Amino acid sequence: MSTTPAEAEIKTDRKLPVLVREADHPRSKLAVFDQRRPLQLDCGVALSPFQVAYQTYGTLNDDRSNAVLVCHALTGDQHVANVHPVTGKGGWWDIMIGPGRPIDTDRYFVVCSNVVGGCMGSSGPSSTNPLTSEPYGLDFPVITIKDMVRAQTMLLDHLGIDSLFAVVGGSMGGMQVLEWCASYPERVFSALPIATAPRHSAQNIAFHEVGRQAVMADPEWRNGRYFVEGTSPRRGLSVARMGAHITYLSDTALHRKFGRRFQDRDNPTFSFDADFEVESYLRYQGSTFVERFDANSYLYLTRAMDYFDLAGDHGGVLANAFRGTRTRFCVISFTSDWLFPSAESRAVVHALNAGGARVSFAEIESDKGHDAFLLDEPELFAIVRGFLDAAGRARGIVV
Amino acid sequence: MSTTPAEAEIKTDRKLPVLVREADHPRSKLAVFDQRRPLQLDCGVALSPFQVAYQTYGTLNDDRSNAVLVCHALTGDQHVANVHPVTGKGGWWDIMIGPGRPIDTDRYFVVCSNVVGGCMGSSGPSSTNPLTSEPYGLDFPVITIKDMVRAQTMLLDHLGIDSLFAVVGGSMGGMQVLEWCASYPERVFSALPIATAPRHSAQNIAFHEVGRQAVMADPEWRNGRYFVEGTSPRRGLSVARMGAHITYLSDTALHRKFGRRFQDRDNPTFSFDADFEVESYLRYQGSTFVERFDANSYLYLTRAMDYFDLAGDHGGVLANAFRGTRTRFCVISFTSDWLFPSAESRAVVHALNAGGARVSFAEIESDKGHDAFLLDEPELFAIVRGFLDAAGRARGIVV
Repeated sequence: MSTTPAEAEIKTDRKLPVLVREADHPRSKLAVFDQRRPLQLDCGVALSPFQVAYQTYGTLNDDRSNAVLVCHALTGDQHVANVHPVTGKGGWWDIMIGPGRPIDTDRYFVVCSNVVGGCMGSSGPSSTNPLTSEPYGLDFPVITIKDMVRAQTMLLDHLGIDSLFAVVGGSMGGMQVLEWCASYPERVFSALPIATAPRHSAQNIAFHEVGRQAVMADPEWRNGRYFVEGTSPRRGLSVARMGAHITYLSDTALHRKFGRRFQDRDNPTFSFDADFEVESYLRYQGSTFVERFDANSYLYLTRAMDYFDLAGDHGGVLANAFRGTRTRFCVISFTSDWLFPSAESRAVVHALNAGGARVSFAEIESDKGHDAFLLDEPELFAIVRGFLDAAGRARGIVV
Repeated sequence: MSTTPAEAEIKTDRKLPVLVREADHPRSKLAVFDQRRPLQLDCGVALSPFQVAYQTYGTLNDDRSNAVLVCHALTGDQHVANVHPVTGKGGWWDIMIGPGRPIDTDRYFVVCSNVVGGCMGSSGPSSTNPLTSEPYGLDFPVITIKDMVRAQTMLLDHLGIDSLFAVVGGSMGGMQVLEWCASYPERVFSALPIATAPRHSAQNIAFHEVGRQAVMADPEWRNGRYFVEGTSPRRGLSVARMGAHITYLSDTALHRKFGRRFQDRDNPTFSFDADFEVESYLRYQGSTFVERFDANSYLYLTRAMDYFDLAGDHGGVLANAFRGTRTRFCVISFTSDWLFPSAESRAVVHALNAGGARVSFAEIESDKGHDAFLLDEPELFAIVRGFLDAAGRARGIVV
């Protein structure tokens, strides 16, 4: 792989949305790609300049053979295993990644980058458009899951990593894993697509469209120009997040957590206050989300997921996406995940089987819904650890 | 039953939301209750004056024993089997009700009234507050399913109907059916609660709360005073309807109807236009809904559903709600209904069984989701017809 002109390790302050105050700013590493190295997007645009913000954990070995790429979900970011610079909370998967953890940073060199289109330092709709010196807004080109992966390949080139020991991710992150395996199979030794699907279903597109309409219905969205106009579509984005959040949980999980309990009292208030605990919880989810996420990024990333259709990209036959692959797969789903139900993972497994690929499949019994992949699920940890151990021995990086 | 002071059969124009133009006005029958006969609400308010808009079909027999009350769902109204005065479309259940239909208007006298809190002529938040001579808005008292049923009992008193041959309804209509059987068992000979539940689940409360927040986030909602201020929270209500509409269908139904098909083209537009057919369909659902429904009514009726908890009203034991009932029940659910899943109907059946009630239960195989109860489902029609035939023979109104 060629190396890339880049001024890495600088601060990302310039390109971040104003909703992140500079003092709180995430000090991520940066790979900056100038006009000599544009990002060729599926929509036809050559994006330039652009940058990728990322974090690393552990040490790259001398063979450069122990790199694990972690791909984040819709509202995730590169802060997978460190304290989040905006929220002050732990990394979104620090239960999975760290010394002695299933993705063991004593063994592996873990890379996690903010997707292109995101809002935590990688180029996205809140970045400055060099033509106008203003934030792109809707002038940012529409991106796809494949575009996210292309940007990641350029980051890995920049880091001098030819081949990934593993690529891992859940939900939208799992879509990126599948895209990696389809588009760059020679660079992926093993892959863990978790709680994901080879295409976005009609129901999922529908939920995303409601979220986008909620954002776009907010008059403060200003056709995407809210940074320039000094407004903020907080209410619309909050409603979008509230609706999406329901789909991340199961009916059972919501019932166990909240049931029909009232807030701090025994009886209804006969009002439109947050009477039930579940209402208060959702309002909190909405209001905290808008502190850390850019509304336009929400539009772009949901759109990228909607467009994802791996079979459609390969003549309508999913098996064609993986034809001749030598990657080792571990596909994982959760029984109560109704957003990315097990049937979607099974379709991936069948397609891999059709091509004679090495694949194991685990459907984990859980009542926590889609978000189970982010939670304390001992069976998930055991499976990830066991699969990586075996793959690590095959790769010669684990004794 | 006492008769009630009322000026029936007048036009409803005064009390309707401004979104219904007067020229298009529904000419429903009206039962008007003056200050001598207030509606005692669960919240403690005595609502007065108030009115109930209703439609009837067929003829009341000499014994007054053939009346069937049909209860409508959240966004339904009294126009169950006639052309809708606003949309110009057929009645929402004319496939079920009419001469020779399962609910046969050659045999039965069918009554359907707009629920209190609604927006098609019955008193609701768009009605005129006599204290201010302005629309109530949020000064309208919060109502419950039981309040809707109380208003219906007053309508039946007004019509001189002591006992209902049957009370029938789906979804929120089914909640009213259950409430009728719990609160006025002596007035109900037979009951058909369809695609419903004895309480609203945490997930359903959550979806409703997102819809309400979408309405209330619209700056044109003006804290409910949009009629007075000459605004209209159309965008917020449209988003609420889009989100709710997804829950009325199944994933399978959405996939069959739309799949991932693009609108009028083969490829994505790489934009935020309605690229997929399912997006266009949802936007249409949202935009047509706001032409016929009042935003505040949407808040009040979703709230009434959230508060519904029949076991909670009876010492935490659902069976207590039906203790000693002599009503004949036919409980119906649909396999793909994830909003009111069959388990909820089974809970009703078990509670009825515990009290030795006469109950039959049909779980109908359908992939159409919650809305199946409104659609062409031959098994549903056969069950309703058969149950009413048998009950009609027992009641002596069918030979």
